[in-house]
Amino acid sequence: MTEKEKIEYIKSRIGSYPDFPKKGIIFRDIFSALTDGKVCQYLKEIVVDYIKRCHPEVELIVGLESRGFLFNMMIAAELGIGCAPVRKKGKLPGELVSVEYTLEYGTDVFEMQTTAIQKCQKVLIIDDLLATGGSLDAAIQLVQKAGGEVVACVVILELVDLNGRKKLNTDVHSFIEYCGD
Amino acid sequence: MTEKEKIEYIKSRIGSYPDFPKKGIIFRDIFSALTDGKVCQYLKEIVVDYIKRCHPEVELIVGLESRGFLFNMMIAAELGIGCAPVRKKGKLPGELVSVEYTLEYGTDVFEMQTTAIQKCQKVLIIDDLLATGGSLDAAIQLVQKAGGEVVACVVILELVDLNGRKKLNTDVHSFIEYCGD
Repeated sequence: MTEKEKIEYIKSRIGSYPDFPKKGIIFRDIFSALTDGKVCQYLKEIVVDYIKRCHPEVELIVGLESRGFLFNMMIAAELGIGCAPVRKKGKLPGELVSVEYTLEYGTDVFEMQTTAIQKCQKVLIIDDLLATGGSLDAAIQLVQKAGGEVVACVVILELVDLNGRKKLNTDVHSFIEYCGD
Repeated sequence: MTEKEKIEYIKSRIGSYPDFPKKGIIFRDIFSALTDGKVCQYLKEIVVDYIKRCHPEVELIVGLESRGFLFNMMIAAELGIGCAPVRKKGKLPGELVSVEYTLEYGTDVFEMQTTAIQKCQKVLIIDDLLATGGSLDAAIQLVQKAGGEVVACVVILELVDLNGRKKLNTDVHSFIEYCGD
C-alpha cells in the first residue's frame, strides 16, 4: 500500500464535528479514526517513514500534552530513540523550564523537565493538529530553552487557512490538510 | 533479554521525587525513564507480550488521559487493533457517556464517545500508574456504560500500599510494584 493510499484511508476515518468546542469551528477528531486498527498502524508507518526519509538525525521525540502523547512514545519505540513530554503547568516534578503562551483569552504555561533534553540534542516535536500554531511555537521555544535543537515539527492534521506554520521557525510537515470547510 | 531483565532495566530509570505534588508523597515519574530509547522499546515489548499471552481476545485498548495515551495507541498499532481515550469533561465532541468520580477534594468527570466502543467489544484499559484506583474504577464503569466488556486493566507501576486493585472489579496486571518508600 502506498503512503498516499494510507493517508486517504486515515482521512476517510477522521470525524468532523461542526460547532465544537464552540460555534463556527469544525472540530477534526483524530480519536474517532483510532478505533480502526488499520488507522493506528498506518499512522505509525507514515510518520516513521517520513522521519527515516527526511530527518534520520533525530535523537528525541517530544510530544505535546495530551494528544501528542499518542504519538511520541509510539514513534520513539519504533525508531529506537527516547521521548519526552511538554506538559501544562504543575504536572511535572523536578527542575523545569517553562514558557508562557497566549490563548484566545488569557495565557497558559508549558513546562519541560531540564533533564529531558541533552545539550544540542536533535529534537522532533509531534502533535496531532496544527491550527494557529500557538502551542507548537511555545513547544519549540521550550525545547530550545532546555538546550535542544528543533529539527522539525510533525503533525497529522493541518488547518491550512489558519496559517499556523508561518509562526513556526522550523521545518513543518503535515500529512492531511483541511482548507476552509 | 528476559522480561524480568527488561523490567529491572525500566525500574532503574524511573525517577522518584519526594514531596511532589505535595508533602509526604513520593512521585514515581515514568517520563524520566522514557528519554532512554531502550525503555520505550522494552515497555512496548513487555505489554504486548503480556496481552498476547494472557488476553489475546482483546479488541480495543482504552487509555486514560493523559499518560495512558503514551500506551494505548502504541500497543494497539502493535497488536493490529484500535484504541480509544477516556478524557476529562468537555474535551470530546459528539455523543458521550460520562462517569463522575471522587478525588481527594471534590469530584471530576470522565467522558467517552459512544461511538468508541462496539457492543460487547472486549476492552483492555491501560494507564501508567495504579495508586488508589479511583480513576481506573471510573474508566471501567465508563467502558461498561458504553457497552464494552472490560477484560483487564494493565498498568506499568503499582503503589501496592494504597491497595487500589481491591477497588477494581476485573483482572489487574502491573509490572513494577512499589511498597512503602
